[in-house]
Amino acid sequence: MPNISPEQMRFWSPEVRELEPYVPGEQPKIQNLLKLNTNENPYPPSPKVVAAVQSVLIDSADVLRLYPDPDASALKHAIAKQQHVDVANVFVGNGSDEVLAHIFKAFFVQDKPILYPDITYSFYPVYSQFFGISTQTKILPLNDDFEIDVADYKQPNGGIIITNPNAPTSIALGLSAIEQVLQANPDSVVVIDEAYVDFGAESAVSLVEKYENLVVCQTTSKSRSLAGLRVGFAIAQPHLIAALEAVKNSFNSYPIDRFAIAAAVASFEDQEYFVAQCQKVIVSRDKLVADLVALGFKVLPSSANFIFACLPSKDAGELAKALREVALLFDTLINHVLINSYVSLLVQMNKINALLIR
Amino acid sequence: MPNISPEQMRFWSPEVRELEPYVPGEQPKIQNLLKLNTNENPYPPSPKVVAAVQSVLIDSADVLRLYPDPDASALKHAIAKQQHVDVANVFVGNGSDEVLAHIFKAFFVQDKPILYPDITYSFYPVYSQFFGISTQTKILPLNDDFEIDVADYKQPNGGIIITNPNAPTSIALGLSAIEQVLQANPDSVVVIDEAYVDFGAESAVSLVEKYENLVVCQTTSKSRSLAGLRVGFAIAQPHLIAALEAVKNSFNSYPIDRFAIAAAVASFEDQEYFVAQCQKVIVSRDKLVADLVALGFKVLPSSANFIFACLPSKDAGELAKALREVALLFDTLINHVLINSYVSLLVQMNKINALLIR
Repeated sequence: MPNISPEQMRFWSPEVRELEPYVPGEQPKIQNLLKLNTNENPYPPSPKVVAAVQSVLIDSADVLRLYPDPDASALKHAIAKQQHVDVANVFVGNGSDEVLAHIFKAFFVQDKPILYPDITYSFYPVYSQFFGISTQTKILPLNDDFEIDVADYKQPNGGIIITNPNAPTSIALGLSAIEQVLQANPDSVVVIDEAYVDFGAESAVSLVEKYENLVVCQTTSKSRSLAGLRVGFAIAQPHLIAALEAVKNSFNSYPIDRFAIAAAVASFEDQEYFVAQCQKVIVSRDKLVADLVALGFKVLPSSANFIFACLPSKDAGELAKALREVALLFDTLINHVLINSYVSLLVQMNKINALLIR
Repeated sequence: MPNISPEQMRFWSPEVRELEPYVPGEQPKIQNLLKLNTNENPYPPSPKVVAAVQSVLIDSADVLRLYPDPDASALKHAIAKQQHVDVANVFVGNGSDEVLAHIFKAFFVQDKPILYPDITYSFYPVYSQFFGISTQTKILPLNDDFEIDVADYKQPNGGIIITNPNAPTSIALGLSAIEQVLQANPDSVVVIDEAYVDFGAESAVSLVEKYENLVVCQTTSKSRSLAGLRVGFAIAQPHLIAALEAVKNSFNSYPIDRFAIAAAVASFEDQEYFVAQCQKVIVSRDKLVADLVALGFKVLPSSANFIFACLPSKDAGELAKALREVALLFDTLINHVLINSYVSLLVQMNKINALLIR
């Protein structure tokens, strides 16, 4: 940020002067560094995604001059079909970050406190500040095993948001625990942020028909390998979807472009590829966890595409720094790692073992 | 919107219950209807845009699994070069609607009134309501010739936004009039929304270096034929850009996807095509205006890619309805119109003259 004088600061809205924005994960430009920090998928999206974008270009590049469908109806229908819900249960946005921002505005600007766990997705406090509800936010600690205790979510509140599986802990809550939260809070909206659910947790989408206070949020950026395209969505009963539409249409009518709509539709239509890729990540993760444990790491039980681990004998900051430096030494090796991703991270781990774990 | 019971409405944030969202221009599905209502460009984008998207796909479709650059640096550099400003003067967003939303939040949440003209872009009152400043908004009527009188903008205020050329009047203000507004309001941010500037008005970007209170907003949706891709931008001094970045990074870190970045960069790099297409629209518009005047229409002086016209002998609503019905009768003719767009609209106008103007 440039230096801004007090005189120049007079142009800013007073509340904006206080914002502490979200800092996206580092995008390192270091060659051969294996970048894992934004939990992107190691596998490419379905080949049908590429074909869908090609067909926008080949059939009618001319359509780029025309606005996309502001409702992204084709995308809503594809999501509804894949999620086994009605199209009236679907809201879409420019990545799940935009969907979450709209969720905070639509439901959480209340005079009672909003509840969420500490540790969790670090964008939640930013949204709270952005929408002027940070003083009404109650952040509830995890227990000593880094787990969410649902008993904490049975106190007066104006809304609840829980990441499931949680990030960065990777631990999932079961649906019965989520139902306890839903039943204990019949007058609050309960948001389940399922960015990583496809890697092994149970989705709460199956509960949407039963609970009028449930919003489930998902993204195409992780399990569908479409982080580059910015498509997220929410599933809820129509009276909640209507609030999200009112907010979205008071902010930006056309958030999803023609390529993103076409590509995401193709992704939702290729269920077979999707299931296979998720399974590959799960198998890789489980092997990585087993091998890290064998190396002396403590690893939390992961239902995500990342793991939360520590090496009791080493300072985590020092270990991260050393791994980053070592990355620069093992060019060939790390290229191999990039190709085979998570499974092959073990190859790297074993090789650098001699350097680090002694 | 579904029917929502008072019980269900308890889940909405109280302020969201009051929103009156923007209604995007109708997207008619009537075959052969010549759709002009969202002022899209009749010509396709530069062929280099299509090539740029192709090369994202061909070189590395695999990159779709990775987040785009949250800063869209490549795009900021291409805009800076084309606009002859420094990259530190550039902010980008998901269409100029998102950029405008961020502008309202960054500068206009003030305890003094925000000023804008009546008639103008109908999203401004929606943003005012969204950010809770509608009671502080002062809407200033145009004069009897549908012109903005800059003398009206010399009263106490917390910010000013002017569309130039104005929509839907199509009339442009000159830079000297804009400088009067800037000089009369040294403590307020003055936003010039230039969605249509490339069709014949003078851009205020040349004033950015001189005025620390100026923000110029533009879009790629009109003159660059990229409505389908959602890219807008603002040009201002760095202390104002920093406020926009703080707002954007508190809302959605990655608003522009990989295809949109690549396509917009290619568009800004093809200055020759851009100038030629704008010129074609200007020539078509001037011929259309002359021929409409010959048919008895009154037409305001247009610096945009649309015109504001009336036929004194007919009710405008009835005329629009009749044109819509006639459109269904002249299939072949209207296909020709779609190909040749604005110029050929005259062919249609002349042919239907017998039906309507008698």
